[in-house]
Amino acid sequence: MKIALAQINPTIGDFEHNTEKMTASIEKAVNHSCDLIVFSELVICGYPAGELLNKKDFVAANLNHLRKMIDSTKGIGVICGFVDKNTDQQLYNSALLFDKGEILHQVYKRVLPACGIFDERRYFERGTEWSSFSYKGRKIGLTICEDIWDDKGFFSRRHDPVDQAARMAKEGADLIINISASPYYAGKRELKLGVLGNIAKKYKVPLLYVNQVGGNDSVLFDGMSMAFDSTGRVAARAREFEQDMIVFDTDIEKGDIHPITETSAESMLNALIMGTRDYAHKCGFKKALVGISGGIDSALTACIAVKALGKENVLGVFMPSQYTSQQSRKDAKTLAGNLQIELLHIPIEPLFNQFLQSLSPVCGETSHGLTEQNIQARVRATLLMALSNKFGHLVLSTGNKSESTVGYCTLYGDMAGGLAVISDVPKMMVYELARLINKDGETIPAEILQKPPSAELKPGQKDQDDLPPYEILDSILRAYIEENKDPEEITGMGFDPSTVRDVIHRVDRNEYKRHQAPPGLKVTTKSFGYGRRYPIARKSWA
Amino acid sequence: MKIALAQINPTIGDFEHNTEKMTASIEKAVNHSCDLIVFSELVICGYPAGELLNKKDFVAANLNHLRKMIDSTKGIGVICGFVDKNTDQQLYNSALLFDKGEILHQVYKRVLPACGIFDERRYFERGTEWSSFSYKGRKIGLTICEDIWDDKGFFSRRHDPVDQAARMAKEGADLIINISASPYYAGKRELKLGVLGNIAKKYKVPLLYVNQVGGNDSVLFDGMSMAFDSTGRVAARAREFEQDMIVFDTDIEKGDIHPITETSAESMLNALIMGTRDYAHKCGFKKALVGISGGIDSALTACIAVKALGKENVLGVFMPSQYTSQQSRKDAKTLAGNLQIELLHIPIEPLFNQFLQSLSPVCGETSHGLTEQNIQARVRATLLMALSNKFGHLVLSTGNKSESTVGYCTLYGDMAGGLAVISDVPKMMVYELARLINKDGETIPAEILQKPPSAELKPGQKDQDDLPPYEILDSILRAYIEENKDPEEITGMGFDPSTVRDVIHRVDRNEYKRHQAPPGLKVTTKSFGYGRRYPIARKSWA
Repeated sequence: MKIALAQINPTIGDFEHNTEKMTASIEKAVNHSCDLIVFSELVICGYPAGELLNKKDFVAANLNHLRKMIDSTKGIGVICGFVDKNTDQQLYNSALLFDKGEILHQVYKRVLPACGIFDERRYFERGTEWSSFSYKGRKIGLTICEDIWDDKGFFSRRHDPVDQAARMAKEGADLIINISASPYYAGKRELKLGVLGNIAKKYKVPLLYVNQVGGNDSVLFDGMSMAFDSTGRVAARAREFEQDMIVFDTDIEKGDIHPITETSAESMLNALIMGTRDYAHKCGFKKALVGISGGIDSALTACIAVKALGKENVLGVFMPSQYTSQQSRKDAKTLAGNLQIELLHIPIEPLFNQFLQSLSPVCGETSHGLTEQNIQARVRATLLMALSNKFGHLVLSTGNKSESTVGYCTLYGDMAGGLAVISDVPKMMVYELARLINKDGETIPAEILQKPPSAELKPGQKDQDDLPPYEILDSILRAYIEENKDPEEITGMGFDPSTVRDVIHRVDRNEYKRHQAPPGLKVTTKSFGYGRRYPIARKSWA
Repeated sequence: MKIALAQINPTIGDFEHNTEKMTASIEKAVNHSCDLIVFSELVICGYPAGELLNKKDFVAANLNHLRKMIDSTKGIGVICGFVDKNTDQQLYNSALLFDKGEILHQVYKRVLPACGIFDERRYFERGTEWSSFSYKGRKIGLTICEDIWDDKGFFSRRHDPVDQAARMAKEGADLIINISASPYYAGKRELKLGVLGNIAKKYKVPLLYVNQVGGNDSVLFDGMSMAFDSTGRVAARAREFEQDMIVFDTDIEKGDIHPITETSAESMLNALIMGTRDYAHKCGFKKALVGISGGIDSALTACIAVKALGKENVLGVFMPSQYTSQQSRKDAKTLAGNLQIELLHIPIEPLFNQFLQSLSPVCGETSHGLTEQNIQARVRATLLMALSNKFGHLVLSTGNKSESTVGYCTLYGDMAGGLAVISDVPKMMVYELARLINKDGETIPAEILQKPPSAELKPGQKDQDDLPPYEILDSILRAYIEENKDPEEITGMGFDPSTVRDVIHRVDRNEYKRHQAPPGLKVTTKSFGYGRRYPIARKSWA
């Protein structure tokens, strides 16, 4: 049997467009003489749809479009995900196989994740029915995402008392199909290869994995759909971060192998480019605005924006103050020149001075305190938002994860924007991505990579005057945020206890800023925003 | 048996303080010769703790403080909620009875809510063990919150196949105790009385309900703990929106009846006052800043702030522009005078003009468009935030629910602040609350209530030029947001189809603004923020 693995990029709620993409893939698969085509989890409506799932007309539209697909498809079997509803109006994350206008089999997802960005137990009931089925000479075990991410060899805490892969193998399934919407984070690839390859190998059956691709707000799906042969080796593989289709032949257990990125940094960069493009386009923006300071964060953000949207669609805005160095002025200009983007120039000194003057009757004499630093950042945000209003461009904010974590950023200032492109990228990784961008020629001026980072909000300011060295800060933050380690455990890793205490204190007391941050593209195991839920008003107990 | 129902206001993570409050209540109950004292759900750590529950040291601190309570309490039995952990590190939302240093009984919550602001299935495992137990001559059925909010007479969709109240009654329980952290919304009181009274009446047993009180970020707990006698009548009742203790005697089925508010508007006003006070104090703020425009929203917000924090702790800031009317100037001044609060005066015209001048080289000639309106709002936000930085006061934003719902507000402008006091109060209700405040004398100048609402961001602007009349807008919004009705259903209620379409379109496309809004006090069944989860990047399917 020849099976097409179709990885498409659905837009949430865009049933018309999503099913058109499916139809185009089906035509292509028929032309390749495929017997079956497999699409990803909830492909009809897009994932994650959140509380749109609670809207009756959303679910009805999803069922109507599925029905149209079933009625109109000819010459091939189709497996796809959709939202099903029972007579009690309860919803199921479901998958079905249809062929010649008939539904041949249907399954309901059993393992509903409720952690990180996942909230499936809010919307879906847990599936109870389950069996393998025969189709064109194969006995197929059909599963949905986490249903088989539950192997006791990999996960210490299992979700389903029944191991579905083991049960299906025991039933005699000779092909396991898994349709997923499995988000990207750095390092996920290895886990994915391990978990899925292990199942194929352990039960000696080929395994097909079809993943969603594309960005939906913060959540990025990398695609990289795969077929594993019955020894657990990758026998077919689709591209990452773009729509793709591969064909796998179950008789010879071989298929298309498309190229993927080699390093973790490359895949993160591609994830950010895809996420920026999809957020802009799915929100209806063609063009974006980036405030360019002459520093590394805005340089990286501008490069990503250009790769995502095209140089003609990115407008740089340089907004120097009296604290902006000559070097930064030069670097901003060089960067824009290298990227061939337009760079507007709006000095903020008159605005900053007017704020100081307007405030002086109530605040008295001014100094270079936090108040004055924040005013500069907010003046810049107000200018960017005004240009956004005027031109209709999306504002991309440029803050990195390290500064957002410890609150080294201004709410309604440099945090402002429609999308926070690199807000989940730690500072050390920002440098790595910048070096990657420069690999084939200097786009980001070398000076930007070499000079010590500074917000340039007061004379002679350097990040490192206020923060621990980024090597140390990033390691502590990874331990605290991503690995959820206790202060004692982090100190036990060899860090200075007072530094650890100070960093954690900063993380905790800046929850209020992150609460109001724009969506940021998630590229680590734990980003801020929707998938990390901490109260603001609370006390520290340690 | 004499039982004390102790409703305290815990702070999340403040184990020391929470258990001190418990100890004080215990002493009082012992002095009243009580046999048993009952505290609310998860009282040791506070509710809702979110992902703090994933922190090992948070759970450990909760267990340590519980252990100290068990060891130190003498002369009375205690029932309270806490987080329990099994040997597999799985967490349970649990309750126990202890007396004389020993744990006599323990239960685990079975019905874990995963809707609205609730996410319990992310953190807790579902309880399996359950039985009634004898204590001091009574057979007690102990339940946690939703465990008994599951009566088939009230809820069409039940969560637990076993009706716990029915099962306990069958087991011979002659007293049902329910410990809760059940949030307030307007109209919840009637549901609460119905559900709980019905259980007592149906099974002919007294029922004790002990609820958390206080605000935690957006979530407000009204308290109003109650005892129902075995005919279902309220036999004891604690105050709303403040800490309180009442005593109920199971032998005579009678207890203290404390006064509560009479109208829905009164209770909403009290909820907002409590929420503002708790957010400020639990975040460490004593004082607040309110931008006062001379309009109704900021007037109401200022009144709530004064009631919450005291007039000496509220600083008004009046920031007129060339578009501010003489009437607004007068009204702002009169309001501040009536409230006896300080009113700073910072004209924004020079700042606004400087922005227009700085932008003119790139934007060309200016007009009274959206760009220019938003600049004014953002200049004001920058001033308020500068004062907040300078003085350390909390900024209270003043937008109402109607405008936030349709996006008739400026991100980083009037939306800016640490807490959005009335962001869940629809405009018509804003007027009702303002009239309530004026009931015993004019605090809010009558002119503010009478003049047509205006943002005063361009000459002669009126809300009603851009929006449907608020009577109609609020009804459509309630149907769409709170009742989750489809466009067709709303049109079917008698509204003009094009108005309905336009309003819904505005709601949907402004998700991005609300994503970056400060926490707002939740007073309806569906507020924006944490309990309402919609994607930003998506298409409308209708």
